[in-house]
Amino acid sequence: MDSVWFDGDAVGYLDQRALPRAVVRERALTVDAIVEAIATLAVRGAPAIGIFGAYGTALAAQLHAGDRDAYRAAAARIRAARPTAVNLAWAVDRVLAAPGAELAEAQRIHDQQRDVDRRIGEAAVALFPSAGNVLTHCNTGPIATGGDGTALGCFIAAHRAGKQLHVYVDETRPLLQGARLTMFELHEAGVPCTLIVDSAAAITMQRKAVRAVVVGADRIARNGDTANKIGTYGVAIAAAHHGIPFYVAAPRSTFDFALASGEEIPIEERAPDEVRVAAGDAVYNPAFDVTPGRLIAGFITEYGVLAAPYAESIADLEYRPNLMLA
Amino acid sequence: MDSVWFDGDAVGYLDQRALPRAVVRERALTVDAIVEAIATLAVRGAPAIGIFGAYGTALAAQLHAGDRDAYRAAAARIRAARPTAVNLAWAVDRVLAAPGAELAEAQRIHDQQRDVDRRIGEAAVALFPSAGNVLTHCNTGPIATGGDGTALGCFIAAHRAGKQLHVYVDETRPLLQGARLTMFELHEAGVPCTLIVDSAAAITMQRKAVRAVVVGADRIARNGDTANKIGTYGVAIAAAHHGIPFYVAAPRSTFDFALASGEEIPIEERAPDEVRVAAGDAVYNPAFDVTPGRLIAGFITEYGVLAAPYAESIADLEYRPNLMLA
Repeated sequence: MDSVWFDGDAVGYLDQRALPRAVVRERALTVDAIVEAIATLAVRGAPAIGIFGAYGTALAAQLHAGDRDAYRAAAARIRAARPTAVNLAWAVDRVLAAPGAELAEAQRIHDQQRDVDRRIGEAAVALFPSAGNVLTHCNTGPIATGGDGTALGCFIAAHRAGKQLHVYVDETRPLLQGARLTMFELHEAGVPCTLIVDSAAAITMQRKAVRAVVVGADRIARNGDTANKIGTYGVAIAAAHHGIPFYVAAPRSTFDFALASGEEIPIEERAPDEVRVAAGDAVYNPAFDVTPGRLIAGFITEYGVLAAPYAESIADLEYRPNLMLA
Repeated sequence: MDSVWFDGDAVGYLDQRALPRAVVRERALTVDAIVEAIATLAVRGAPAIGIFGAYGTALAAQLHAGDRDAYRAAAARIRAARPTAVNLAWAVDRVLAAPGAELAEAQRIHDQQRDVDRRIGEAAVALFPSAGNVLTHCNTGPIATGGDGTALGCFIAAHRAGKQLHVYVDETRPLLQGARLTMFELHEAGVPCTLIVDSAAAITMQRKAVRAVVVGADRIARNGDTANKIGTYGVAIAAAHHGIPFYVAAPRSTFDFALASGEEIPIEERAPDEVRVAAGDAVYNPAFDVTPGRLIAGFITEYGVLAAPYAESIADLEYRPNLMLA
C-alpha cells in the first residue's frame, strides 16, 4: 500500500480524500496536477507530502529538460503548495541540489523514509506481548509516511513478527483520521482492529485489557513533552490511570532539540466549523495538545526505545545522525 | 423553555429532532400522536417522557370520557410506546390511579419534577466560585427533564444566583447530545458556553482553569459507582489528574439501592453504524461507562450534596422520601 510512487512519466498517488469509500489511484502528469494534489489534501501526511514533492520535482526536471529556469520555477511552485509543510520544502530542496540525478535523489528520500519507519517498527516489537489488545489515536500509518508509518508501523511490525495484536482505534474527532484512514490501513496490513469513539478509550482500557498505547507525534521537546493530535493527552492520562504503558513512536526528525519543554509549543486552533452543529456557537478547537514527558513510558525511534530520564536520552539522540540526511 | 406542557385539548411538546436547526413546537391532539411523538424520539429524556406520558394519559381520559375501557386501552398504548422507559410506565400508572383527577395528577408529576430539579440546582450553587469555567458531558438540561435539569440545572441555578460561570460542553459522540441539545439549552438559559470535541476535555482542564465538572447519571450504586453516558469515566479520570472536583448531579430516584457496586451494571452496546465510516468495520460502541465512586467529589441531590464515604451517605439517602412519590 504505497501512498505515492514514481510512474515513468507521472507521479502516482492514492487520493486520500476518497478513503475509505474508495481506493482511487491517480497519476499526476503535470506540475499543475502535482501542486493541486498537495493543495487539495489528496496527498497528506508530512512525510508523504515530502516524498510526493520530491517525485514531483523529479518529474518537473524531466518535463523541463534543458530549461533550467522553467524547472526552478516549477520546483518553487511545488515547494509552496503547502506553506507550513516543512518536509515538502526540505525534500524539494534536496532534489534541486542533485542536478542530473533528480529521480535518484527522490527515490533515496523515499527509501530513507521506509528505512526509518522499518527501524521504528523493529524497535517496538519487543514492547508488545505475544498476543493482546493495544490502542492508538489518530493516523500514523503507511498513507501518511510513505513507509509503514510510526505508531502504526509498530503494530504492523509486531503483526509481521507473529504477535497477535488487536488494535482499538480512536475515531479522532473532529476530522476522523482514525475512522477514515487508520482503520483502512490496518485492514490493508491484515491487522485485526476495532473502531471506538474517542471518549470510549477509558472504558476500553478498563474492560478490554489494553496492554499498550502507541501514538505518533508532531513535535517533541527536550524533556519529552510531546505535541500530538488533540486527544492524545487525555489518552495518556487514562493510560496512566490504568497502569498501561503509553509510548510515542517518532523519528529523530520529530524531536525539536531547541525546545526545552512543551510549554513553549503554541497550540494551533482550527476553524469552529469543524466542530459546531448550530451556527454561531462558540467553539474551542485546538488541533493539538501537549502530553507531559512524565506520562510517556518510552519514545520508539529509529535508534531504539528512549527511556526516562528524557533530559539524558533525548540529549543523546541529538548526536545521532539524521538518517533522512544520509 | 418547557419541553412538554398541557394545552387544553392537546399535549404540547418541543420536537427535539429538529434541534438545534429549528425550535418546532407541536400539539398532540390524539393518542396516536402522543405515541408517535414518544416512539420517534420527538420527546426524549426519561423524566420528560414520563411527564409527557402523564399528560397524554390525562388527554386520553378527556377524549374517552365515559368509556373506561377505551381510556384504559389508550393508556396501555402510551405506556408501551417505549418499553424500556421506566419513568413512562410509572407516570402513566400514577395517572391511571387517579380517576376523575387525571390532569391534576399529571400536573403534580410535572411540578414534583420541577421541584426536584430546583432543589438539586440550589444544592449546587455553593460548590461554584463566583466566576470561572466549568465543564459538562452529554445532555442533562430542561429539555430532558421538564424542569431545569440535573447537571445543567446546577449551572443554571448558579447563573441565576449571579455567579459568572462559563460552561465548556463536550459534544458527546456518537450522538452529539452536547453539541445539539446542551449548547441550545445553555443559550436559552443565557449561560455563556463553548463547545469542544470530547477529546479536548483534558487540554481544556489544563489550559482553561476549569474549576468544577458536573455530569448527570443513569444509575448510581450504593458505593457511588456511577453509570452515565460513554465518556464520563474518561472525563472523571482527567479531572482527578488535574485536581478538579468532579460532581454527579442526580435525584434520589437515580440511585439503585439494590446495587452494591458498578461491577453489577451491564454495559449496553449500541449499533456499530452510530460510529463507523466504512462498511464492515468492527466497532465497540458502549452506550455507557461506569465511573468509580472514588473519582467523584460529591453527589448533588434534592437532599443536598452527598460526600464520601458513600457507603454511609448513600445509605442515609435511602431513608429519605422520594419526592416524586409524595
